[in-house]
Amino acid sequence: MAATFDRTWKALAARVDAALDRFLPAENASPRELHRAMRYSVFAGGKRLRPVLCLLSGKMMGERVTALLPPACALEMVHTYSLIHDDLPAMDDDDVRRGKPTSHRVFGEALAILSGDALLTLAFETITRRTKDAGLVAALTHELARAAGSDGMVGGQTFDVLSEGKPPDATLVDEIHRRKTAALIRASVRMGAMTGGASKAELRDLTHFGEAVGLLFQITDDLLDETGDDRRMGKRLRKDAEHGKQTYPRVHGVEESRALAEKLAAKATLALKKYGRRAGMLLAVPTFILSRRK
Amino acid sequence: MAATFDRTWKALAARVDAALDRFLPAENASPRELHRAMRYSVFAGGKRLRPVLCLLSGKMMGERVTALLPPACALEMVHTYSLIHDDLPAMDDDDVRRGKPTSHRVFGEALAILSGDALLTLAFETITRRTKDAGLVAALTHELARAAGSDGMVGGQTFDVLSEGKPPDATLVDEIHRRKTAALIRASVRMGAMTGGASKAELRDLTHFGEAVGLLFQITDDLLDETGDDRRMGKRLRKDAEHGKQTYPRVHGVEESRALAEKLAAKATLALKKYGRRAGMLLAVPTFILSRRK
Repeated sequence: MAATFDRTWKALAARVDAALDRFLPAENASPRELHRAMRYSVFAGGKRLRPVLCLLSGKMMGERVTALLPPACALEMVHTYSLIHDDLPAMDDDDVRRGKPTSHRVFGEALAILSGDALLTLAFETITRRTKDAGLVAALTHELARAAGSDGMVGGQTFDVLSEGKPPDATLVDEIHRRKTAALIRASVRMGAMTGGASKAELRDLTHFGEAVGLLFQITDDLLDETGDDRRMGKRLRKDAEHGKQTYPRVHGVEESRALAEKLAAKATLALKKYGRRAGMLLAVPTFILSRRK
Repeated sequence: MAATFDRTWKALAARVDAALDRFLPAENASPRELHRAMRYSVFAGGKRLRPVLCLLSGKMMGERVTALLPPACALEMVHTYSLIHDDLPAMDDDDVRRGKPTSHRVFGEALAILSGDALLTLAFETITRRTKDAGLVAALTHELARAAGSDGMVGGQTFDVLSEGKPPDATLVDEIHRRKTAALIRASVRMGAMTGGASKAELRDLTHFGEAVGLLFQITDDLLDETGDDRRMGKRLRKDAEHGKQTYPRVHGVEESRALAEKLAAKATLALKKYGRRAGMLLAVPTFILSRRK
């Protein structure tokens, strides 16, 4: 089962990579330095969690992968831009990401900022690639902008930056994680479902699934920062504690955070249980995240 | 004539300001610091050139102002985000903009980066406010993303940053200005026309108009940096020369740049001459830009 899951995941991630390669400007297109910086970060070797969730959720609705690739790639572009900007010296000041030097270490701060800006902009251009159904394009644009904006991801990052060094606070850590990570993961599942023409009831169930998976993912991320292996993770760990970040283990302790993660995994699975085999690989995603080591 | 022009411009700019106030998150909505930073830069007192061009071009097609406000405000949000990021220490390192301290001087670098990111994202959300015509939303999203992205504004800013200190180069300055400034001004005129349902021929003429006006605006900007008054401009001037920036006066000299600006103004007017009174105030815009003192 785990081997099949891995194989299918890798195959879908490969489809995403190939589409990203098509959707991104060529490296020799002018301005080359900018396009090189954009590609460097996009192809630094991520898990492609968000785009694969989008594909799986759309496939559950019977949609073809080809039609799902534009929103899936838009999600990965938004995620990548957020990592580039989060790593900047003025933000988290990280030198290594996914085992490689961060964008500003390679290209300088100006190009790191600009390549993030360009990726965010390209995400919205990419969504319009599915031009046959204009109503869907408008709905996807709205969904992505809400999830990525000041009420979603950017708002979460703001709380994250502003709350550094404050005493651990359960309400605050929840607020940060819901916005910073869960909002975009929830949107990934929803955008796949919307593209696949999900009914209202299906969209509601998948939204619950996406919310639980999003929080689950962030808690396992916090746990890995506390207990994981630097080399395997491809970034310097234990920085959250150093920087006085609001994390689940800091607020609730490692044991309770693990228990909470398991509870969320069960909740996510339950939200899709009634769909049985139709939910396909989505049902295995919570366990996959729960057991991740990087 | 000039007085009527000024009055109408101010009235349209006031409509834009009121709409921006509605479209931006409230200052007391969480996270407050982020929303305060977004509003600080948006309401720092710009001319609203891009949104007013969008309104004028749409009005020429007989469109109501209300229907034009979402794309018009989206354009101003994109413009404002680009100023915030351009002013950052890693980019042009400017302390004053529109007579006020720049965003990072007031809110710190992290919040300046994040408020720019949030404004860019909100621009795309704002376009979807006109949801009745989904085909138009998709077309406007595509137009804005192309103009603002790596082939447009962000690409121009990249060239600008990378060419600092290089010997003056006529091809390079043209490339920078076309992308950095003219692309978004051209899109402003086009997005108004598209919203108003312009025909292919009308859109082509307005595109030529927008291109000429965009370049004209940047040349007058370069000239004002060289010969203008700091206090009136609300920013520190003569920085282009200090930083070895590629500007028209540096490449072509002040006199030739003035002559070029006049030629572009004539070209812009010519592109719309056949529409006569229907082109309305748009016909007076080139002269207005040519004579600007701030």
